[in-house]
Amino acid sequence: MKSSPVRDLLALTQRPEVISFAGGLPAPELFDVDGWRDAFAKSADDRRNLQYGTTEGNPVLRGVIAERMTRRGVPTTEDDLLVTTGSQQALTLVTTTLVEPGDVVAVEEPTYLAALQCFQLAGARVVPVASDEHGMVPSALAEVLVADRPTLVYLVPTFANPSGRTLPAARRQEIAALAERHDVWVVEDDPYGELRYRGEWVPPLTSYGERVLYLGSLSKIGAPGLRLGWLRAPRSLMSAAVIAKQAADLHTSTIDQAAAAVYLTNTDLDTHVAGLCAAYRERRDTMIAALPDTVPAGTAWTDPDGGMFVWVRLPGAVDTTDLLRQALAHNVAFVPGAPFFATNPDPATLRLSFTTNPPEDIIEGMRRLAAALTSPSAAGAR
Amino acid sequence: MKSSPVRDLLALTQRPEVISFAGGLPAPELFDVDGWRDAFAKSADDRRNLQYGTTEGNPVLRGVIAERMTRRGVPTTEDDLLVTTGSQQALTLVTTTLVEPGDVVAVEEPTYLAALQCFQLAGARVVPVASDEHGMVPSALAEVLVADRPTLVYLVPTFANPSGRTLPAARRQEIAALAERHDVWVVEDDPYGELRYRGEWVPPLTSYGERVLYLGSLSKIGAPGLRLGWLRAPRSLMSAAVIAKQAADLHTSTIDQAAAAVYLTNTDLDTHVAGLCAAYRERRDTMIAALPDTVPAGTAWTDPDGGMFVWVRLPGAVDTTDLLRQALAHNVAFVPGAPFFATNPDPATLRLSFTTNPPEDIIEGMRRLAAALTSPSAAGAR
Repeated sequence: MKSSPVRDLLALTQRPEVISFAGGLPAPELFDVDGWRDAFAKSADDRRNLQYGTTEGNPVLRGVIAERMTRRGVPTTEDDLLVTTGSQQALTLVTTTLVEPGDVVAVEEPTYLAALQCFQLAGARVVPVASDEHGMVPSALAEVLVADRPTLVYLVPTFANPSGRTLPAARRQEIAALAERHDVWVVEDDPYGELRYRGEWVPPLTSYGERVLYLGSLSKIGAPGLRLGWLRAPRSLMSAAVIAKQAADLHTSTIDQAAAAVYLTNTDLDTHVAGLCAAYRERRDTMIAALPDTVPAGTAWTDPDGGMFVWVRLPGAVDTTDLLRQALAHNVAFVPGAPFFATNPDPATLRLSFTTNPPEDIIEGMRRLAAALTSPSAAGAR
Repeated sequence: MKSSPVRDLLALTQRPEVISFAGGLPAPELFDVDGWRDAFAKSADDRRNLQYGTTEGNPVLRGVIAERMTRRGVPTTEDDLLVTTGSQQALTLVTTTLVEPGDVVAVEEPTYLAALQCFQLAGARVVPVASDEHGMVPSALAEVLVADRPTLVYLVPTFANPSGRTLPAARRQEIAALAERHDVWVVEDDPYGELRYRGEWVPPLTSYGERVLYLGSLSKIGAPGLRLGWLRAPRSLMSAAVIAKQAADLHTSTIDQAAAAVYLTNTDLDTHVAGLCAAYRERRDTMIAALPDTVPAGTAWTDPDGGMFVWVRLPGAVDTTDLLRQALAHNVAFVPGAPFFATNPDPATLRLSFTTNPPEDIIEGMRRLAAALTSPSAAGAR
């Protein structure tokens, strides 16, 4: 097991002169610092928020999240929710609860690399399901369900990491029905769902059937530093997830949960998210507009309706890990695509995040990337 | 896998009329609320503390902890430390990193029940090592090392949970030497080590040898609500633990780490801990003084030099789970001892925590416990 390239790169790309499209980081200048400062001031004043808490999590926070999910098409009560230390922990708890060593986990291709690491740590065999520009192909999933009998199917159905693509409603319905027919659990990982910049809202996958677990997160719409996520699961699974969480960290930070409960109660989050979407839309458009002048002819890229990522495939026999070294020499960074594949990595792919940098830095960063792509050693790498 | 009785009881014992000796909770009135409020006010003002952070943790916090460990006899640098979401997470990360399903973990008897749950979730076989009033018996460990070839040995060497006992220096030396001879990892879980009320300081087990991993915590000397602990491990093991932490929750709360770094830098923690020890010493003495008039003749109990717990063994064929129901009817609570045993539970044992309640409530709680013990159905249970 090797360390995550994303995490290793974060160290390299933290030099202030680097414009980084690598990390999936929200724009820090858009954090609601005033709102969070007030929420922490109120919470730190109550000594109960410094004490141990229950494993399930702060009931007020769970209530606010349940109400928000209900409004977004997924009827939810406080009891359906377990607060987790980021949605990454929710994924690990589900894996601990459901996946035994040797079990099969089916994933779209490419997929979130920290999910792949999580399944591999659990000793699972990861089987990719054929996916196209609309995400996982239901007929391909049907074949994998029969041939490989997975325990779990993992998807980021909305504005996927790393591809940016979104699973259409009809496919959601098919996949939820397949899960019920084959008695398999589907995990809908949805950290980006509220960050839509155009097009029509698509109901969450979990609204289509009882076998879909839902992982939510405040990292992209609130602040990632608090590490607050949640698992929505049926009662039958929840008690096992709670036991796994007791072993994992007893409970999530009492004071961060209390601050989030205050923040979500006192803030108009819809207005805040609308502001994020306006800013991110401009960044997305800026990057997409710059791409034709950045990459060589024959390059393909996704054109996401939301989220944080553009997925790029360069023409020819390029290795984007070599290209990254060249890019860093030009003070720009991205994530090579290979680690996002469960098997048979495509070394000509890469992921660009457009949310972290303001438009002027995106333009300059794309200029640098163009220079890296046309430099002699990059040409040699191709 | 059943839910932890401690967690289930927390719900029952939260009725305001119950005096609870059950949970291992620090006294909330002794939290340094002013210090933490200032630390959070400073931290919440910096938007970098709302952003993602590195998996290894806040370097200032690691520096302060390293300096504190060095002063306490364990030379440590920032690079030896991984910040974890409570020391419970450190235990789970070590287990994920080192223990495969079917492996053996050796423990003292009785031992911390959430550790037992963690090893069982990992599919380990838990083997108890004979232990006396001074903790694990080195000759018994030597036999288990040969007979069962454990991957890991787990101990709370100082003011153990649940027994309150402390492993003497000579045994620490023997156990560390055994670990090196048999190439096995020992985990020293040390959340209570700074809470000494009498007697001489004993160097941490990890100071006696290279095969002892150390788990530290701010929960008892700072505040448990922040969920801040740490793993001290050699470089050879650290990179695997970091990967396990990436899968577990990416990193621990940025803002809680920043607040702890500010708090530990600006506060004289030694003076704060001395205040805790003075208050807890009085509570310990109050509970120990009340015990002879509380329990029936023939009862045995430990007389801990520090920490939070007194371990009690009632005479005869009592089941303390039945007794707990009786106690709750008298508005007092404790934890039955059985779940703290890996095998062959002793149903006549129970754990009392003396830190949570002020002396006057301890006196009243012990009166209620005496009444529960002499009530007709309790007598019937014996």
